[in-house]
Amino acid sequence: MAIMTTTSSLAFQPVLERIAEEIERTPGRGRPADYIPALAACDPRRFGMAVAELDGTVYGVGDWRQPFSTQSITKVFTLALDLAREGDSLWEHVGREPSGNPFNSLVQLEYESGIPRNPFINAGALVVTDRLHTRTGDAAGELLAFLRSESGNPALGFDQEVAASESAHGARNAALAHFMASYGNIDNPVPVLLDQYFRQCSVAASCADLARATTFLARHGIRSDGSRLLSRSQAKQVNAIMLTCGTYDAAGDFAYRVGLPGKSGVGGGVIAVVPGRCTLCVWSPGLDERGNSVAGVAALDRFTTLTGLSVF
Amino acid sequence: MAIMTTTSSLAFQPVLERIAEEIERTPGRGRPADYIPALAACDPRRFGMAVAELDGTVYGVGDWRQPFSTQSITKVFTLALDLAREGDSLWEHVGREPSGNPFNSLVQLEYESGIPRNPFINAGALVVTDRLHTRTGDAAGELLAFLRSESGNPALGFDQEVAASESAHGARNAALAHFMASYGNIDNPVPVLLDQYFRQCSVAASCADLARATTFLARHGIRSDGSRLLSRSQAKQVNAIMLTCGTYDAAGDFAYRVGLPGKSGVGGGVIAVVPGRCTLCVWSPGLDERGNSVAGVAALDRFTTLTGLSVF
Amino acid sequence: MAIMTTTSSLAFQPVLERIAEEIERTPGRGRPADYIPALAACDPRRFGMAVAELDGTVYGVGDWRQPFSTQSITKVFTLALDLAREGDSLWEHVGREPSGNPFNSLVQLEYESGIPRNPFINAGALVVTDRLHTRTGDAAGELLAFLRSESGNPALGFDQEVAASESAHGARNAALAHFMASYGNIDNPVPVLLDQYFRQCSVAASCADLARATTFLARHGIRSDGSRLLSRSQAKQVNAIMLTCGTYDAAGDFAYRVGLPGKSGVGGGVIAVVPGRCTLCVWSPGLDERGNSVAGVAALDRFTTLTGLSVF
Amino acid sequence: MAIMTTTSSLAFQPVLERIAEEIERTPGRGRPADYIPALAACDPRRFGMAVAELDGTVYGVGDWRQPFSTQSITKVFTLALDLAREGDSLWEHVGREPSGNPFNSLVQLEYESGIPRNPFINAGALVVTDRLHTRTGDAAGELLAFLRSESGNPALGFDQEVAASESAHGARNAALAHFMASYGNIDNPVPVLLDQYFRQCSVAASCADLARATTFLARHGIRSDGSRLLSRSQAKQVNAIMLTCGTYDAAGDFAYRVGLPGKSGVGGGVIAVVPGRCTLCVWSPGLDERGNSVAGVAALDRFTTLTGLSVF
Repeated sequence: MAIMTTTSSLAFQPVLERIAEEIERTPGRGRPADYIPALAACDPRRFGMAVAELDGTVYGVGDWRQPFSTQSITKVFTLALDLAREGDSLWEHVGREPSGNPFNSLVQLEYESGIPRNPFINAGALVVTDRLHTRTGDAAGELLAFLRSESGNPALGFDQEVAASESAHGARNAALAHFMASYGNIDNPVPVLLDQYFRQCSVAASCADLARATTFLARHGIRSDGSRLLSRSQAKQVNAIMLTCGTYDAAGDFAYRVGLPGKSGVGGGVIAVVPGRCTLCVWSPGLDERGNSVAGVAALDRFTTLTGLSVF
Repeated sequence: MAIMTTTSSLAFQPVLERIAEEIERTPGRGRPADYIPALAACDPRRFGMAVAELDGTVYGVGDWRQPFSTQSITKVFTLALDLAREGDSLWEHVGREPSGNPFNSLVQLEYESGIPRNPFINAGALVVTDRLHTRTGDAAGELLAFLRSESGNPALGFDQEVAASESAHGARNAALAHFMASYGNIDNPVPVLLDQYFRQCSVAASCADLARATTFLARHGIRSDGSRLLSRSQAKQVNAIMLTCGTYDAAGDFAYRVGLPGKSGVGGGVIAVVPGRCTLCVWSPGLDERGNSVAGVAALDRFTTLTGLSVF
Repeated sequence: MAIMTTTSSLAFQPVLERIAEEIERTPGRGRPADYIPALAACDPRRFGMAVAELDGTVYGVGDWRQPFSTQSITKVFTLALDLAREGDSLWEHVGREPSGNPFNSLVQLEYESGIPRNPFINAGALVVTDRLHTRTGDAAGELLAFLRSESGNPALGFDQEVAASESAHGARNAALAHFMASYGNIDNPVPVLLDQYFRQCSVAASCADLARATTFLARHGIRSDGSRLLSRSQAKQVNAIMLTCGTYDAAGDFAYRVGLPGKSGVGGGVIAVVPGRCTLCVWSPGLDERGNSVAGVAALDRFTTLTGLSVF
Repeated sequence: MAIMTTTSSLAFQPVLERIAEEIERTPGRGRPADYIPALAACDPRRFGMAVAELDGTVYGVGDWRQPFSTQSITKVFTLALDLAREGDSLWEHVGREPSGNPFNSLVQLEYESGIPRNPFINAGALVVTDRLHTRTGDAAGELLAFLRSESGNPALGFDQEVAASESAHGARNAALAHFMASYGNIDNPVPVLLDQYFRQCSVAASCADLARATTFLARHGIRSDGSRLLSRSQAKQVNAIMLTCGTYDAAGDFAYRVGLPGKSGVGGGVIAVVPGRCTLCVWSPGLDERGNSVAGVAALDRFTTLTGLSVF
């Protein structure tokens, strides 16, 4: 079934092109997120995909150099940055179990005394950002510096319009933050935390940027300059959390179809990791009812089928 | 960190022995399940572990040849047997998402109209058994034949005392079955289904037996006699479900610590799969508060750390 | 606003006639319950209403002498019969708080360890029937004898077809009973209990019968023959539970609109009590989405508005 | 059982004195609320009780003239003031069903799209305050003016220390308000609303003040100066909501034991209404685990038993 008997890097380009052709012929792309204007305006027919090898070489197809709104994808990087500093004490403040509920549910938060189930639901990401902000004094700046460095793209930045829009529509995240604060699980003032959080969500980056920025997870924790961000064990752990919790209430389905650690955002992007081998990023703004890119997940599904590159 | 620079098979035996020594020195083993007498009587200091290579060679340590009550571990085999016959239509009757709730909760079943979240919570396993029984006329017999054949141990059998105990304490499973029947998601009469289900849970087998019987999942669907039970894609899918749903409400933690597809049972056993490489089974009857073997999970954690064999 | 400046009994007949005329002109009656054929076949335009004074004198209008399926209305009588025998120890096995959830939810049962919230949700009624059956050896027979005696209608009986239908569609009640049994909150074998329960639900009676049979609650516990069934305090308590829990998830709305203790059934009947003054029974088979008779509740609303007879 | 064969007003004083004596001899008073210092400092042995007749005559015993923190009791008055202005459109923004859950739960709010179950849970009271504030420009001021006028006590005021304390510990109410705002169910800026809300909770008043201020509900909507605040039907409705929802998750138990519309506050006060007859207010700061005054509920229970004055 696999068209690549050897997994040599040169073979990625034809695989990506074949996938892009198949996606092109596929009707039905879902709908862009509509809660803020900047996302709602996206054309659901846009599609880009990139693969980055361990040495940073990137292959791409379609709109792979087009910046888009990363949204929840940045939760992976914030988690890695805080885990690198704080280590296991983080897990006293956020769990690492799948939520089994829509991604911004308050229910389990209440039953579990203000400790979010995992770092990738909104509540959990707020906690991680809060802790990174306490440790660095500028969580969003820390994230941006990391993304610029790993992607090799110093032009990466926050999208002020998106950040302002998120803030204007951020009542539910404000509720989550206040609620966790009522349990003593938030250190910073809620308005400060929300500002940090919404700026992180607003980072604009391309498939090429994100595939490159993710390679430290395929390199077992080693950054692009050869320094270590995470221990081998921590890198494995972040991958594990991506696999079990990275795609909202569809993590089981994603693992079943794609079989790779992955993280999606409502901007239509998805990153994925083949440990020890490569990383991927795909973008298409149309979402399914669980908030994941329709064409993006389909493309990753095809990639693992065509290459046989799955963790299972 | 890994003591095996090559992953040659000969190296498994010293790894197992080192793990057994470490476990032996570790205090605290949890408590055996106490809802039926046969399980409550188990000594929590018992410990066995086996590794089976793709060709069926088995290495072991401690009580690795001692039969124990497999309990929920058999849910993996029943799932594979039904999936092999039925294919994707199974997924109209059971989901494949982590439950995010204790393993026999009725709550999500109600919110999701009688469709259990995945095949490894009790409700989901009842549905799979029901469907296999409809297709074969003898779900438990089919399971037993498969386990005997794959393990190479024709002496495997049901433990009548355990099955009778399960039945006597089975009010909650009866409730689940009647409840799903009220949604039209059960075909067979509830008493018939429960009898089939409790017999499956009662199978007694050793670590050696189960490690061997699981190798079809490491061989991408190929049985011990070279015939194919599952397609490569289906084998990947079963592994994915084990990783995301195999250890009750601790699947995230298990993925984080062990990083392998695994399935536990309240008898204290845990099976795990290193796709393309080997399978493992560990047994120690003392459980943590989420129903997983304390020493079993610790041993698998050590195994992946020492060998570097993780999917991440 | 009230048309009765004195609440003399003679004035009830014109009130009933005025209400019947208004109801006749009102379009929209909801839909009959459709889970069993005997109920689905009812004409939603049927309407009957009766008022019984403390001395048993009954006034009526429309189909007030037409027997219908009492369904959950009998839960009031079973509660009174068990409370009379058992006293306050009943409350260790069933609560007396509104459920805040649809009437056959399993959710709260799980959170509250098998103790149903109140005697009028299905789970609670199963517990009360179970306990009455343990005390009398024939809960359904006890209920029927009481209804015949209080209504003065010895022809009252079970509807065997309805009871058989209920049993055939009783999977959810079976689930509830098994679930509570798993917590040790059911004494009798589940099949025995279900048979008793479904027979109670099947009693056929008219508005006249039920208005008369309910008068012991308006007479503060005194039966029609002058003997005491309940203490004054117990009668007050049963009325309180009817007000807070008698109309499924619409108890607040019923209290708000009608302002009387009441109990509805999915057969379209509703009984209500004006303590110290009279009782009412209304019947119209069309239900709203919460299971209460549309015309029945409207008629009671009009009655309290026209007469000023409300507890508030 | 009743010691008052006639319910003449002169008989209230000996009833109150008998109750105070009985309460005095009763050990166990629960514990004061401890989430803000001003409440935690209260002596749980304090006890006061007052009865106000329809003409404003007040009888009292114990600490009946001692001001205490009214807390949630003021929710009744805010509801009446908004209902008087807005009428039934209020019910599109807040329900009138018992919550069946602890008093500040977020769960049902999520399941019911930001519409709180009733006006007496915190979420519902926030909505009512928000709406009254929109209509008057000063919800708290409106409330205070009403309480001063009806109680005849122009010295009533806000307790600034309590209001500040509430605000400092108000993270959970902030979460509720932001959460409802995310559903579009809050008009005013959340900080403005919270300030209004916490000031209302901080009103200090005595049993005498509150019993008098509540008499409009016993007079079917007529204020002390003879003007009408609520229609007869609206007054009945407020009483109905008090009965079904007025005492947190213990409304069923309160109806069962006391049998009167009532509203409690975590300051240890409880008001109750005998429609057409009188009103009561009792205060004792020790609370049970559901947030209701232990001695307060016991005293009301005794009052209805001794006088026979219950709505049932």
